[in-house]
Amino acid sequence: MRAITLLTDFGTADGYIAEVKGTLLSRAPDVMLVDLTHDVPPGDIAEAAYCIGRAWRRFPPGTVHLCVVDPGVGTERRALAITAAGQFFVGPDNGLFTDIVSAKQSAAVSLPMISGAAPTFHGRDVFAPAAAALAGGAELSSLGPPATDLVKLPQTRPQRRGEFLVGEVIHVDRFGTLVSNLPSAKIAPGATVRLGVYDLPLRTTFADVPPGDPVAFAGSGGTIEIAVRNGRADVVLGAGRGVEVRATALRRSEPKLRATQELRN
Amino acid sequence: MRAITLLTDFGTADGYIAEVKGTLLSRAPDVMLVDLTHDVPPGDIAEAAYCIGRAWRRFPPGTVHLCVVDPGVGTERRALAITAAGQFFVGPDNGLFTDIVSAKQSAAVSLPMISGAAPTFHGRDVFAPAAAALAGGAELSSLGPPATDLVKLPQTRPQRRGEFLVGEVIHVDRFGTLVSNLPSAKIAPGATVRLGVYDLPLRTTFADVPPGDPVAFAGSGGTIEIAVRNGRADVVLGAGRGVEVRATALRRSEPKLRATQELRN
Amino acid sequence: MRAITLLTDFGTADGYIAEVKGTLLSRAPDVMLVDLTHDVPPGDIAEAAYCIGRAWRRFPPGTVHLCVVDPGVGTERRALAITAAGQFFVGPDNGLFTDIVSAKQSAAVSLPMISGAAPTFHGRDVFAPAAAALAGGAELSSLGPPATDLVKLPQTRPQRRGEFLVGEVIHVDRFGTLVSNLPSAKIAPGATVRLGVYDLPLRTTFADVPPGDPVAFAGSGGTIEIAVRNGRADVVLGAGRGVEVRATALRRSEPKLRATQELRN
Repeated sequence: MRAITLLTDFGTADGYIAEVKGTLLSRAPDVMLVDLTHDVPPGDIAEAAYCIGRAWRRFPPGTVHLCVVDPGVGTERRALAITAAGQFFVGPDNGLFTDIVSAKQSAAVSLPMISGAAPTFHGRDVFAPAAAALAGGAELSSLGPPATDLVKLPQTRPQRRGEFLVGEVIHVDRFGTLVSNLPSAKIAPGATVRLGVYDLPLRTTFADVPPGDPVAFAGSGGTIEIAVRNGRADVVLGAGRGVEVRATALRRSEPKLRATQELRN
Repeated sequence: MRAITLLTDFGTADGYIAEVKGTLLSRAPDVMLVDLTHDVPPGDIAEAAYCIGRAWRRFPPGTVHLCVVDPGVGTERRALAITAAGQFFVGPDNGLFTDIVSAKQSAAVSLPMISGAAPTFHGRDVFAPAAAALAGGAELSSLGPPATDLVKLPQTRPQRRGEFLVGEVIHVDRFGTLVSNLPSAKIAPGATVRLGVYDLPLRTTFADVPPGDPVAFAGSGGTIEIAVRNGRADVVLGAGRGVEVRATALRRSEPKLRATQELRN
Repeated sequence: MRAITLLTDFGTADGYIAEVKGTLLSRAPDVMLVDLTHDVPPGDIAEAAYCIGRAWRRFPPGTVHLCVVDPGVGTERRALAITAAGQFFVGPDNGLFTDIVSAKQSAAVSLPMISGAAPTFHGRDVFAPAAAALAGGAELSSLGPPATDLVKLPQTRPQRRGEFLVGEVIHVDRFGTLVSNLPSAKIAPGATVRLGVYDLPLRTTFADVPPGDPVAFAGSGGTIEIAVRNGRADVVLGAGRGVEVRATALRRSEPKLRATQELRN
């Protein structure tokens, strides 16, 4: 049985997700539906791209990911079905799939518009039928003509400045933890991590400092994170997405920071 | 494998949904559980009726919908199991199923009270066992005696006044979009849509106006909706459920507004 | 097909749950994933213990419960897999499983740390693989050495004082209902229930009093609850977790309060 995952900004208080799920089950009755999140902030493509970008490699081949954060619905933006690493992705061509289309040997097709599709609800009328078809074993190429030059979000890469690697906060999670784009593997084990006026100790986990204290560590996504034990780093340190973070860069002669597992199940 | 969908006002922070799901899986181990929403505002029967009323026709025959928004739990209100179009519905007789019982050839039975059922948790002790039985193939008639004269919510229908069709906002969605009860098929293509002091252009989708501008369009549920591009119409226009909306009615000689797909998978 | 339930404090706005679900599906493709809740307040072990403690007996044998509310992640606290009544539980040894390890014939093993596991995300790297293994039929004993002296949360038990049984509010639910730890079976049918300065009538359900009125009743979890009909008892009565509740104790000569069903499906 194949799984279709759902990632949207629809929230759950309306019946939109219900309409999408009904459409999927009517067309692919034996599929397993797996909610990833429906709580992406409305229209926040960058958050959606971050979420699916971090998670997709954990899923098995054959999984179909229906991802709909689509502020341009009804305009000329393309509707896509993509394959990468044996998995499938369906959604709008707006940068949501930046990480997937950057993977080796990914391929995409452009979904044709469907007569009578609601201009404001392609999730139900265009994307769900394509996801159901893929879950049922349809070939990607049967869904539309090849699509190239897909939209990618601009991604700021950390810069070397003197002894520091300088990056930024790219995500604030539910616990108020600040996730940076500084790769843990490129940071010195004894690094000072600096956020605004704060110099933070680099430890293994937030439980390594007293309650209420801020701390930096090699996070579970492969980059440096900043947390406050039993508190919210975003509030305590007054920081959010886009704020600069810098840390002492690894020198050639040093052993790497203990790397977080790169699981590829 | 049959699906049981769940629509409640239980929220997800408590363990109530967990207790219901355990009860379902214990009695129907091979069933697939599908969350529709648990975020109906507490006791808001009209919202629940709107949600299931819009979504249910998308589901395949055999689906069982467990719907529990039940402020009258433990009183004399009847407990129901209903069938319509090959699907099944289980929940309280309080108007939640207004759309379903209005469908052709729907039939209902009254579920008997179960000895020892918690007076405040029929979702777990009365409705879930009935839903599990239906998912397992039980005949509707085996669950209780026929029930007629089911509760329906009063529904305001749009009225013709001069050249206008006059209705109201019946739902505000997560994006702040105002959903009216004006059927798109009865509105003139070049209509002026009026909400309070605002005259709104009728377009195809919200992306047809500049960011920040309000716009009306034929919505995905078959009625006129009002949105603000990249904003919240409820906030910007200061409107909510029950506010009057009027639009120029279609004249016999005019072509209909481009209809939204009436999908019936 | 076995079910893996998920109970966490991860929320759903981040992609953490997605990473956990991908890990589970990669290792146990035929498993059914069942969300219990991801909305436990961050780090609130007592709430998580209350939630799984109330719900678990409703599930069928073979169910695997993945429960991750883990403020001590990355410290020396043990990682556990537990069996009780034919079900399985995986998560941290911090009191979350207080109710389960108090059950007869429960047994536990200590999960070994996994090389490269992220110190801040054992839910993905330690607990999910163990849950997937159990869902796939692995023996509990194959996962690690026996673990004893598991952490239990201190539980206040109601005390007899004169004619009263004196307990406290242990949970406030989504509707504002105050759940006490006073066992309904030990309270007199005509009891006065006292919360602060309020004397509350003991009825069958909240619908037995006029809208806006407070009322006590034998709740669906086997203890006395206090609600306000069509309102929030926590707000109206100004009470929350830990507030004292007392009620007239049952005397030997009296018949018991109508008991809530002790369902054990």
